[in-house]
Amino acid sequence: MTRTLYDLCGRDERLRFSPYCWRVKLALAHKGLKVTAKPWRFQQKEALAFADYDKVPVLCDGDTVVTDSFEILRYLDATYPDAPLLGEGMAYQRALLIKSLVDRSVNPALVRIIILDLLDAIHPDDRAYFRESRETRFGNRLEALHDPEAGWRQLATALAPMRDVLAQSDFLDGEAPAGADYLLMGSLMWAHVVSRTPLWADDGPVAAWFERMLKINGGVAGSALTVRHLG
Amino acid sequence: MTRTLYDLCGRDERLRFSPYCWRVKLALAHKGLKVTAKPWRFQQKEALAFADYDKVPVLCDGDTVVTDSFEILRYLDATYPDAPLLGEGMAYQRALLIKSLVDRSVNPALVRIIILDLLDAIHPDDRAYFRESRETRFGNRLEALHDPEAGWRQLATALAPMRDVLAQSDFLDGEAPAGADYLLMGSLMWAHVVSRTPLWADDGPVAAWFERMLKINGGVAGSALTVRHLG
Repeated sequence: MTRTLYDLCGRDERLRFSPYCWRVKLALAHKGLKVTAKPWRFQQKEALAFADYDKVPVLCDGDTVVTDSFEILRYLDATYPDAPLLGEGMAYQRALLIKSLVDRSVNPALVRIIILDLLDAIHPDDRAYFRESRETRFGNRLEALHDPEAGWRQLATALAPMRDVLAQSDFLDGEAPAGADYLLMGSLMWAHVVSRTPLWADDGPVAAWFERMLKINGGVAGSALTVRHLG
Repeated sequence: MTRTLYDLCGRDERLRFSPYCWRVKLALAHKGLKVTAKPWRFQQKEALAFADYDKVPVLCDGDTVVTDSFEILRYLDATYPDAPLLGEGMAYQRALLIKSLVDRSVNPALVRIIILDLLDAIHPDDRAYFRESRETRFGNRLEALHDPEAGWRQLATALAPMRDVLAQSDFLDGEAPAGADYLLMGSLMWAHVVSRTPLWADDGPVAAWFERMLKINGGVAGSALTVRHLG
């Protein structure tokens, strides 16, 4: 069976930085499922017309097409029930809350730290589109959003509950990583791939967890090409 | 078997406002376990010497003494496994994260809204102790902490992930309430009992959930005496 993920790419086709695509790649690796991560750029809307969707991730699992990262994780749990990602019942509901927490608290903090690095990582042909769409979304110039000091403070606050959990267990989801770990790690991979700016000053539990997350599941995250490789 | 909870009380012995004691009372009601909630005041340290602890909640379940609200929820799940509160595995880990989120984001927002109401709800003999211990903890005068406008903004931000979940399901933990609901509800009961200040301006999903939470499990929360009853 063919399994293809449409995966956002940057100025080098190997630069893959979308936090939502990372969630899915980490989830597929967790399930032991191989995938071809097909490069896709912001304006290639027509390439996704078959999915009736205009952004990534889009997963084609044989004949099944699934869009939206959280829906893809749900689909993977339903279709490949071994090694649950989100789980069911209370576990699922709490994953939903953690997803929202990451989207609403962690991602906006990261934007303030990496937005100009992100612009630079994007293909030159996509930069005008990116600037216009994001400046409309955020209601501000990208240069005005860029405020790493504010971002670090916001990030430390946003990550405080994760730090508490990781002071007690190796992974957010316990002794082994699962959905909550991938929801957060996706966002941190966004920064890891496009930015040289450190996200934290200390060697605390979140930093140690991040290093572990780079290594798990065959090092799928740790082997990602980053802007540091491109010089 | 005798089951007793040492439960913080205020200027009227029936005013019970501790968010951590509320977590436990809601959890006991969830398990269908009867309890005598014994009034305790901040400075009655000697009454808890038997537990080698100096604050509440302290649960005496027959001969077993358990302290700390989260530990009590764990204990209840281990001892009375029907109707899990925290659950196990991923569900448990995610509850730990939600606990930390409530403690670190929701509670500090509530402090800014209710701190002077809280001072007024406390027994007059405890107010000097409360002021001194809290001003040391927060590094600020209670009157300087009091800033409802800032508190409402902080609370809306802190509750945003909960609002997202409650837009999709009746309770944080799904179709029925469980641990995540009680962790948050405990904190909101703190405000509900001591303060006349509304916590939100809208009739959104959190407000609707709060009304549901007042009614569940025999209305244990909704039947609480509040400062509104005392005039």
